[in-house]
Amino acid sequence: MEENFLLHTNGARAIYDAVKDLPLIDFHNHISVSDIAADRRYEDLCDIWLSCDPYKHRLMRICGIDEHYITGDASGFEKYSKFCEIFPLLAGNPVYDWSRMELSRIFGIEELPSKDTARVIWDTANERLRSSEYSTQAILSRFCIEYQSPVAALTDDLSCFDGKSTAPSLRGDNLLLPDEKLLERLKKETGKEITDTDSYIAAVSLLLDRFSAAGCRFADHSLDTGFFEGEQGAKKAELLCRLGVEYAARGWTLLLHIGAKRKTSERLARLAGPAGGYAAAGKSFDTDALCDLLGSMETRGGLPDTVLFPLNMSDQAVLAVMQGSFSEDGTLSKVQLGPAWWWCDHAFGIEHTLSSIASFGVLSAFIGMTTDSRSILSFVRHDYFRRLLASWIDTQNTKGDWALTPPLQAEIARRICYENAKEKIKIRGAKQ
Amino acid sequence: MEENFLLHTNGARAIYDAVKDLPLIDFHNHISVSDIAADRRYEDLCDIWLSCDPYKHRLMRICGIDEHYITGDASGFEKYSKFCEIFPLLAGNPVYDWSRMELSRIFGIEELPSKDTARVIWDTANERLRSSEYSTQAILSRFCIEYQSPVAALTDDLSCFDGKSTAPSLRGDNLLLPDEKLLERLKKETGKEITDTDSYIAAVSLLLDRFSAAGCRFADHSLDTGFFEGEQGAKKAELLCRLGVEYAARGWTLLLHIGAKRKTSERLARLAGPAGGYAAAGKSFDTDALCDLLGSMETRGGLPDTVLFPLNMSDQAVLAVMQGSFSEDGTLSKVQLGPAWWWCDHAFGIEHTLSSIASFGVLSAFIGMTTDSRSILSFVRHDYFRRLLASWIDTQNTKGDWALTPPLQAEIARRICYENAKEKIKIRGAKQ
Amino acid sequence: MEENFLLHTNGARAIYDAVKDLPLIDFHNHISVSDIAADRRYEDLCDIWLSCDPYKHRLMRICGIDEHYITGDASGFEKYSKFCEIFPLLAGNPVYDWSRMELSRIFGIEELPSKDTARVIWDTANERLRSSEYSTQAILSRFCIEYQSPVAALTDDLSCFDGKSTAPSLRGDNLLLPDEKLLERLKKETGKEITDTDSYIAAVSLLLDRFSAAGCRFADHSLDTGFFEGEQGAKKAELLCRLGVEYAARGWTLLLHIGAKRKTSERLARLAGPAGGYAAAGKSFDTDALCDLLGSMETRGGLPDTVLFPLNMSDQAVLAVMQGSFSEDGTLSKVQLGPAWWWCDHAFGIEHTLSSIASFGVLSAFIGMTTDSRSILSFVRHDYFRRLLASWIDTQNTKGDWALTPPLQAEIARRICYENAKEKIKIRGAKQ
Repeated sequence: MEENFLLHTNGARAIYDAVKDLPLIDFHNHISVSDIAADRRYEDLCDIWLSCDPYKHRLMRICGIDEHYITGDASGFEKYSKFCEIFPLLAGNPVYDWSRMELSRIFGIEELPSKDTARVIWDTANERLRSSEYSTQAILSRFCIEYQSPVAALTDDLSCFDGKSTAPSLRGDNLLLPDEKLLERLKKETGKEITDTDSYIAAVSLLLDRFSAAGCRFADHSLDTGFFEGEQGAKKAELLCRLGVEYAARGWTLLLHIGAKRKTSERLARLAGPAGGYAAAGKSFDTDALCDLLGSMETRGGLPDTVLFPLNMSDQAVLAVMQGSFSEDGTLSKVQLGPAWWWCDHAFGIEHTLSSIASFGVLSAFIGMTTDSRSILSFVRHDYFRRLLASWIDTQNTKGDWALTPPLQAEIARRICYENAKEKIKIRGAKQ
Repeated sequence: MEENFLLHTNGARAIYDAVKDLPLIDFHNHISVSDIAADRRYEDLCDIWLSCDPYKHRLMRICGIDEHYITGDASGFEKYSKFCEIFPLLAGNPVYDWSRMELSRIFGIEELPSKDTARVIWDTANERLRSSEYSTQAILSRFCIEYQSPVAALTDDLSCFDGKSTAPSLRGDNLLLPDEKLLERLKKETGKEITDTDSYIAAVSLLLDRFSAAGCRFADHSLDTGFFEGEQGAKKAELLCRLGVEYAARGWTLLLHIGAKRKTSERLARLAGPAGGYAAAGKSFDTDALCDLLGSMETRGGLPDTVLFPLNMSDQAVLAVMQGSFSEDGTLSKVQLGPAWWWCDHAFGIEHTLSSIASFGVLSAFIGMTTDSRSILSFVRHDYFRRLLASWIDTQNTKGDWALTPPLQAEIARRICYENAKEKIKIRGAKQ
Repeated sequence: MEENFLLHTNGARAIYDAVKDLPLIDFHNHISVSDIAADRRYEDLCDIWLSCDPYKHRLMRICGIDEHYITGDASGFEKYSKFCEIFPLLAGNPVYDWSRMELSRIFGIEELPSKDTARVIWDTANERLRSSEYSTQAILSRFCIEYQSPVAALTDDLSCFDGKSTAPSLRGDNLLLPDEKLLERLKKETGKEITDTDSYIAAVSLLLDRFSAAGCRFADHSLDTGFFEGEQGAKKAELLCRLGVEYAARGWTLLLHIGAKRKTSERLARLAGPAGGYAAAGKSFDTDALCDLLGSMETRGGLPDTVLFPLNMSDQAVLAVMQGSFSEDGTLSKVQLGPAWWWCDHAFGIEHTLSSIASFGVLSAFIGMTTDSRSILSFVRHDYFRRLLASWIDTQNTKGDWALTPPLQAEIARRICYENAKEKIKIRGAKQ
């Protein structure tokens, strides 16, 4: 990969230089901590690069590749070859960029994947994968990760988290519509009877303390499209409000992933499983109800710091405005639009996010990038983000005549790439 | 028109050179096939350029021109003169660009229309219109149209279509709320009793076969704003689902024109008729229900290839995401965002469409341009699109460091301008 | 401030030169006419620059500054100092630009506010404020304001308006859900009994005549998020329809401020009051109902000229389309998207507005800028707008190959910056 990838001016390069070596704080992802603990090895390039990446599967499907070569019985090399064949035609999609960055950064491979280069890339990468420098831990060590928080459910075993560089974040989705199994489990874990909402929250609260003890600083909830609709919606909103107050009491930051539409093709659901890369973005979200929910938390006991991740790009502006609608003495950006999420995580989406945050709020208060990924290769996306950010700041500084000195431009970039996320972890800990 | 109109770099010009002479596939328009059959001649420049173009009428109204000079009793020259007077003030609107392209490409007229140039343009154009080189067929022959499919209703006479370069596409709107007249007609045409939904679909199905025999490969439905609302909405959705399965069985592609709000000014409805250019764009569409409808077709018998045309620009991103939510082995882009539609068909809308498709899906799988127009002059819009596409690809290739060779850039452009649309026609025919 | 702030090409500078000295028509603001009448003096820089500017308060809160230093008991200098401390980190937000323009244009201060420069700026500005050249009237006189129309409620005293350079515009919000107090007042002012809608409108109508006599040409209504929902929504829409007909009869222009969500943090509502800068933008608006309302006015007696100000940026395109959905013989742009409003009033929002109006309608018919501000310093925003407009036109003229001569470019800019707004005032007056 070219050294100046996405950096076309001296100004952009100077800003990038100020942030490129900062440690990573990846405050929300789905990395397997058991893979880390076991220092998992990968069989081949398909295993590490393709099999675990639903973004790539999705593009293969768009190109009409048979499911046999995506999630079916074809061999790893066959699947990989099909992906290489279409690869040059994927330009414009972020997977095209990320894939090249993954090959370059981790494997030192600079060839553009294609029908012609498939074999040589395969052989080179697989040879490297056989060396001890390509174990899970060895790969992760290249990324200078100061802190990451993979998600865990409330009743999950947390022993694989070290609570320092790898702390759990709570995935709270199953808590909003608790089923019998969860209630049984809670009773068993806490020894408490659950007879109503208060006793339910009390039991959950005991296990939240366990998360806090394991270093947890973030709770994550999916507010899928239609979240607030109907009687069930009201019930979920009420429980989320109660939980939000609990998170606030512990100094956690609430991450709201907003507007996914998970139900699309039944065929793909059967073939590819729930995280198979075929989810859609929901219609424009009921951000009014969301705002009211945050208001309720504040009024009823405490609003946690909150980061909003809309999947529908047309909701970005409206959520960026909300940065100014809630505040707390001494807290930087109590509520804020988060980094471009999931299908929005590309130059188009990232630049739109930056424009929205800067124009409707305060860019320098932005918490910055997190991968939300299952793949250990995805940490290259922090570099992707930093390059785009550096270029964006330089462009705006020039176009908008910000007249900021280079050190001030660099400071804003550093806050976004590292310091603001770090403050969320530190300050929140201190308040607890 | 300047040779390098909209092409400001060598890269853009090279990409344009690769697509500029490709034949046109205009897979959805409203051209009058009887005009073609009769080789209609045009009286004057007003007749061919202004009278049949509601886009131009709309701009005249915005500028406060009396309706007398738009749809009223004024003479052709008076109407035309009023349009010329405001013309230089229309810069920024695509009609400003298209109008100049129409004069340049068809009439060889390079003057900017204005109060001062109105007379000379009028005289020049009218003189040309008197020559046999300006009959409908002669004008169409300049555009190298390989395939076009003007719409026809289910019970229309199809004898004017040759089934090769001019095949009908089905306009299905009246099928979703069939009235007594349609049911009578169906009964008469098919000899079948219609007593329930099944027998209705069976009768329609017979006439769909007639369309297939006439070369039809596309069915078009308007999903106006509020389409899914209420009991009537559920009924329409159910019938559309059943029809979609029929289209899929015939290998047709379904075109969904989404979110028009046709009811606006009653005064203009009276004066200008239903297609008078005063339609609005509806509020953000219920894309969740749309996605569910496509899922139902898939589950209940077959999802046709589907192209989505939103009129509300803020729905583009969400519909671009849907490219990854449905797939079929061997089919390129089973579901996709279509080209910028109607009021969105301008540089701003086209570039937003390209950014959305590329960022959320696969640009090289994009079906490309169609005019959706009533005017035979509108085929210049393919050239408009090709120029904008070439510039966009060159810009992104540079800005995004795609590092694509010129032949690969050209290949992506060629697929979008010709090959992908051609594949929809060919493949679908083969599957039948 | 640099002379060429936001003007980076010769073309942009030439267009700007054509509009920079045009008088201001600020057709909607919240300036205190009693302050003007009393020729109010300001105590210090905090008093004139910070205390009355909720935009600045909002950014201070986002940065975590204690409310004590925003709306609390801290001294003016303490508050001001806190704002200066964060100032360089606000780059990207329009307040960063406006603040610098305010200091430069009014106080001749060119230093960037910061911790280091806070004292010297404070001393310089305060010294100037002691001179008679910094009274309210003296400051206003620098702006060449030909016409402004601060809002007044229906029963307000209008004696402070001169009806020429300062005419009232009607703030109609309290008229849609009239309370007992208003009804009593109406009865007292008009001597009419109010027993039903007709008699209510008749009484209001008498006071509207009083506004007309005072030079009023604009009526303003807030259509907050959810405006049309429920029984109350239908009632408000019906009254607004009736009022719209009255405004039309008087030749007024209706300003609709659309989609604010005022209920957010109860804590901030307590601390900062109703206009404290913490309002959010509502979810995507029901623009269908809005369009139907305009249609009803037209059908039921008369549609006033209407300017639409959406707060949710994703509604801009859809409202720009509406420019073509209503028309009137002899009226330029009967209905139109207004200038970027409130939180949208920044380069990002303004450029999006310009692109929307130009692409979906006719840019040269755009009514142009108004401040909607409470601060007399905010008139610098007209200059901000003019610079952005000039750059935007030059960029589009080049990128889009508009091939407009410099005089035509300048004419379009002049219409937008001055003539179109002036026509709204003049023509409407004439029709009355």
